[in-house]
Amino acid sequence: MISTATSAQSIMQRADIMAGFSEDAGRLTRAYLTPEHRQAHDQLAQWMQDAGLDTWQDSVGNQWGRKVSRNPTQPTLVIGSHSDTVTNAGKYDGNLGVLLAIDALSSLKDIEFPFHIDVVAFADEEGTRFNTTLIGSSAVAGGFNPDWLVIKDASGVSIAQAMMEFGLDPNQAGKDARTTDELLGYLEVHIEQGPVLETKNLPVGIVTGIAGAKRFQFQVTGVAGHAGTVPVDLRQDALCGAAEMINFVERYARQAEIVATVGICETVKGAINVIPGETHFTLDVRSSNQETLERSVNEILLGINKIAKSRELSVNSQKVYQAQAVECDSDLQQRWGNVVEQVTQQEPCYLPSGAGHDAMAMAAITPIGMLFVRCDKGISHNPAENVLVEDVDVALSCLINMIKTFHP
Amino acid sequence: MISTATSAQSIMQRADIMAGFSEDAGRLTRAYLTPEHRQAHDQLAQWMQDAGLDTWQDSVGNQWGRKVSRNPTQPTLVIGSHSDTVTNAGKYDGNLGVLLAIDALSSLKDIEFPFHIDVVAFADEEGTRFNTTLIGSSAVAGGFNPDWLVIKDASGVSIAQAMMEFGLDPNQAGKDARTTDELLGYLEVHIEQGPVLETKNLPVGIVTGIAGAKRFQFQVTGVAGHAGTVPVDLRQDALCGAAEMINFVERYARQAEIVATVGICETVKGAINVIPGETHFTLDVRSSNQETLERSVNEILLGINKIAKSRELSVNSQKVYQAQAVECDSDLQQRWGNVVEQVTQQEPCYLPSGAGHDAMAMAAITPIGMLFVRCDKGISHNPAENVLVEDVDVALSCLINMIKTFHP
Repeated sequence: MISTATSAQSIMQRADIMAGFSEDAGRLTRAYLTPEHRQAHDQLAQWMQDAGLDTWQDSVGNQWGRKVSRNPTQPTLVIGSHSDTVTNAGKYDGNLGVLLAIDALSSLKDIEFPFHIDVVAFADEEGTRFNTTLIGSSAVAGGFNPDWLVIKDASGVSIAQAMMEFGLDPNQAGKDARTTDELLGYLEVHIEQGPVLETKNLPVGIVTGIAGAKRFQFQVTGVAGHAGTVPVDLRQDALCGAAEMINFVERYARQAEIVATVGICETVKGAINVIPGETHFTLDVRSSNQETLERSVNEILLGINKIAKSRELSVNSQKVYQAQAVECDSDLQQRWGNVVEQVTQQEPCYLPSGAGHDAMAMAAITPIGMLFVRCDKGISHNPAENVLVEDVDVALSCLINMIKTFHP
Repeated sequence: MISTATSAQSIMQRADIMAGFSEDAGRLTRAYLTPEHRQAHDQLAQWMQDAGLDTWQDSVGNQWGRKVSRNPTQPTLVIGSHSDTVTNAGKYDGNLGVLLAIDALSSLKDIEFPFHIDVVAFADEEGTRFNTTLIGSSAVAGGFNPDWLVIKDASGVSIAQAMMEFGLDPNQAGKDARTTDELLGYLEVHIEQGPVLETKNLPVGIVTGIAGAKRFQFQVTGVAGHAGTVPVDLRQDALCGAAEMINFVERYARQAEIVATVGICETVKGAINVIPGETHFTLDVRSSNQETLERSVNEILLGINKIAKSRELSVNSQKVYQAQAVECDSDLQQRWGNVVEQVTQQEPCYLPSGAGHDAMAMAAITPIGMLFVRCDKGISHNPAENVLVEDVDVALSCLINMIKTFHP
């Protein structure tokens, strides 16, 4: 096995360097097509070249590096993650996967592969600047929507303008999409952004699928009234109804083994001495199995309506977002499993991803395989985001061995 | 029995006239010591004089009218309610009780009583202008607090200044308090402000006591997290905890036969895709039995803490308000009961008052007896506040007969 201990240290240092490319002093914010994003990609290109890769930038600003096969007609294995961040971000979300891929190819510099291996830093996964996520990987997977070009950021700058400032031609955006025929698969290593691996005391885990999500807004309407004079049995209390619905959602999610979250709840025109006449709340339901997602949402909506009816409340809801669930390729899952078992000498853990990733978009054109790295307390999208260098070491070994499994 | 049908019609008309004394065009708002309040009291004094009463204004602006006993050393029965209103008020809250008392004494004009009968229109029950409730009745009951004189309204006018503009000497405020010795009792007729009588299809009901109240603010703290990546079993969701607490409060109130209300609930820094880390809510608990109130609050706080503990949440609370429960005199309740049964030919309904009333303050110096009049859908503090003329007719008959029970 190739020794990776020094490499893991170096990856941690590179993550620190990457964190310096930020538009906010003292905290990390690096949005799509900003000058800091330009600097970050130039730095990544340099490290890619140091790893012996041929580098280029594609039509939407994704940064690529290729370990070229002797036979130029061979297909390509793509490995990557994203280089943009949320506002006030952590250093590892996305970036760790890109740095691991570069380092893995550096380690494999002297080994010949009968296929190309591309490292990619997808340019927009988070949607921090333009509120549209996965622009980078969607473009690669043939899903670039020309309507996106006119979307403006908070300062009124359109994506088209920002592309030109970044050195891109917006007329070419998405025209260099990759195709199924020329690809072997897509691998991505990413921090878990959840507490499962930490709870199980495991450095890495194999992703079974990326959850689809549906999001709703609910308005529960009852009858406002005097808190002192209306007996509890005669009330149509919108908040008590909403509370029962929130606890129903929680119980349902536990029993159905999905995640469901009421993130916002508020009484409308509430006062300390008034029975709530109206309460609003949101709902986010996710499952890595699309069928489970659909069934769960239906059953949750049914349950919420039943509670409303039993309390003589009315309830309205609007679906405000949805994304399809994507399953990770079963063969790639199994190969990750073998590799993880070999490296860690532990039973591999398979877990779904509740968060979205570039692999979701890439799944449209090629089999995807993802590896999660344990992160401290499951915290992400936060400066407290952290990973252990030992876990990065394990992830790097796993990635190197995983790439080798593609060797005939 | 004295026929009261014409009187009930006249009371409804007088309530309409009173509603014209408003500082807001097109809606009823009449706050303590305003010019419109002055006009309203002058009108009441006129009607009192028409009913054969001797009238005067006391040191805090309460309007009085006395049916004088031949023997000036006899004690006094006081009957009344308040003449001030909330902002955008209904026409009957308080005013109905004053108008009923005037009309009852008008009906009894020709009957001699061996005691004085005073009608009072208390000047500040709602606290609309200065945020201090029950100034009028507290002053009569010897509870005027001189610190109140410096309290200012939204325009910076102090109570002392407002008193002078109203024709009062603030140095005399509260110095003409009444004493237990000279009083026979205090009777008040008031709209229910709740739905109990309407639900039971009864025109009036006898008040057993006026609820004491305790109010709290709660902060529930858990751990915020990614809605997609943290399994339900690993969450410390502050909103799910708060929801369980809210439903516990509801169940507890139902079982303990008190009223308890969570009027405001909100997730702090909530987002549709974030597990709530912090949720705030309020609590208002009332009971007409002080012991029940104390026990209920203790048990609710205990239950809330237990839920927090079971969910690994922390919970803080602050008591922000409290008022003592006051029981209505049992003899007066029984006499109201007899009178109501006689007038309505129905089993009398005894019910607690969840709202505060001037009788609370008067209870400090004399036995109190209250009668509630059914109001439409239990609505009050709202222009939709309404009563049936038939119910006013019943209330008037009951009040007249009640006054007669004091005749030896």
